[in-house]
Amino acid sequence: MYRPEITVVDCTIRDGGLTNDSHFSLDTVRAVYKAVCESGVDYVELGYRNNREMLAPDSFGPWRYCDEKHLREVVEGIDPGETKVSLMMDAHKSDPADLVPAKESVADMIRVATYVKDADKAIRVCNAATEHGYEATINVMAISKEGGPFLDEALQQFEEETQAKAVYIVDSFGALYSEEVHYLIERYKMFIKTKQIGVHFHNNQQLAFANTIEGIIKEANYVDGTLYGLGRAAGNCPLELLLGFLKNPKFNLLPVLDVIGKKIIPLKEEIDWGYHIPFMLTGQLNQHPRAGISWMKSDNRHDYAELYKRVTDEMED
Amino acid sequence: MYRPEITVVDCTIRDGGLTNDSHFSLDTVRAVYKAVCESGVDYVELGYRNNREMLAPDSFGPWRYCDEKHLREVVEGIDPGETKVSLMMDAHKSDPADLVPAKESVADMIRVATYVKDADKAIRVCNAATEHGYEATINVMAISKEGGPFLDEALQQFEEETQAKAVYIVDSFGALYSEEVHYLIERYKMFIKTKQIGVHFHNNQQLAFANTIEGIIKEANYVDGTLYGLGRAAGNCPLELLLGFLKNPKFNLLPVLDVIGKKIIPLKEEIDWGYHIPFMLTGQLNQHPRAGISWMKSDNRHDYAELYKRVTDEMED
Repeated sequence: MYRPEITVVDCTIRDGGLTNDSHFSLDTVRAVYKAVCESGVDYVELGYRNNREMLAPDSFGPWRYCDEKHLREVVEGIDPGETKVSLMMDAHKSDPADLVPAKESVADMIRVATYVKDADKAIRVCNAATEHGYEATINVMAISKEGGPFLDEALQQFEEETQAKAVYIVDSFGALYSEEVHYLIERYKMFIKTKQIGVHFHNNQQLAFANTIEGIIKEANYVDGTLYGLGRAAGNCPLELLLGFLKNPKFNLLPVLDVIGKKIIPLKEEIDWGYHIPFMLTGQLNQHPRAGISWMKSDNRHDYAELYKRVTDEMED
Repeated sequence: MYRPEITVVDCTIRDGGLTNDSHFSLDTVRAVYKAVCESGVDYVELGYRNNREMLAPDSFGPWRYCDEKHLREVVEGIDPGETKVSLMMDAHKSDPADLVPAKESVADMIRVATYVKDADKAIRVCNAATEHGYEATINVMAISKEGGPFLDEALQQFEEETQAKAVYIVDSFGALYSEEVHYLIERYKMFIKTKQIGVHFHNNQQLAFANTIEGIIKEANYVDGTLYGLGRAAGNCPLELLLGFLKNPKFNLLPVLDVIGKKIIPLKEEIDWGYHIPFMLTGQLNQHPRAGISWMKSDNRHDYAELYKRVTDEMED
């Protein structure tokens, strides 16, 4: 029933860090790390390795930089089982000089997040990661806005100029419908011949899990999830749903459910991720969620008709 | 871009009534009715027409019986536009004698909810509705449990023995994945030749909207939604997502967004519908949500690992 090539990446702490400027307590990060390792999930992404000069260090917690010292505090004394550690590096906010050799690092994989326009920066970071001994992927963000020829050109470059294990479709705005997922995977396959295709979906329209399934049906083999969907705005594909769908007997749902109840649900008191109309609207309109995030903080957060008028008016300007 | 045959039914008050024993205030029901009429949605379902002797009247609010007197209070003074009124009758909890002639009724359509085992009761109610001048549909509940030959037999009977406009797939447990939706529609099409196919999905696995889209892709033309997904347990396909997906210019999202903010969000203080792990688990395990609903009311509602052990142990007994 299952496809052994399917590789699951939990990115709860990394994507969730976009909701709280990566200010998770060490206790929370260790609990997530331990639960994901026990669940048999392939990778756990503990944050970004962004550059302190390119991203003001005063406002962000440690999981935006993931110094090796902090990573060691996370993993110390916890049996990783078969689970490996991943970090994300933004192509435009990272310096390859911040990488230590893989054998001296807690991390095993570097995922390079990029916009199409930054493809050459992404290739530079990706190749630096490979040269340092890491596995690497390239994750193409805001894909729902990339209708033109530059996506094809970037995919061709990723195929020819890197040793990435996978190239991802990243639906940053939560805008895609299943037919678009199918279309994009076919388009990726025209260029990505020697690497896997990955999928990372946002939940603005309650389609993150559904689109992940559609990706799997169309042979994407790298799939992302987060505990209880924790992530920017409407959040991500919930890992607990994904593991229930995948039939690989190596996965164990119990530690995932346990840590959700004990460590993730309590975060709801500070972080209001999930399905909300302001995030739904930006997804439906294929926009960055920032208008929705800002509206959620306003006094009239439930005046959805007013928000709708504003965001549609802006589109018509 | 759009398919004019697609008929949208809002069932906020009817399915939402399963969360509060149909105790909505008249003000709420009128506001929902008005907004749905303004949105251009085809039908608004105001509740059940169940029989008072078959269903203890002391515990339920008026929208479980929908006396004509109560229905008139809902619609009075509101311009319906092109929107018609629907009621649901449970095949096993309804008496055709409770129907008045359609021309004396506020309602235009009777939807008969049934289990496969009650197909003959459903046909009786459906035909009574037709004889009284109503449009009618038959909605087959708990479809994720109906793998055997009796479903085929029931579909054949519905096709031959009724004048239903549509026969529905109802995923009461929120258990279906897209491949199963495709499979079921193909199976329905083997028998349902002169009627439309309808879909009604629950959101236990965050797939209600996605599965509705898959139904539409496979040519289901009757589709259900509720405001903000209000409905039993994890709720339903959110109407606001559905209208955003459908491109028919007759639909207007604004009144839907407005009433959600003003009348539906405040219900969150009393009713905890939506995505919760206990509902997710019953959906994933293809069970009735009652174990999840009961767990949600317990003191240890966030001890998901314990619930998982219990519901999986029960399955193995």
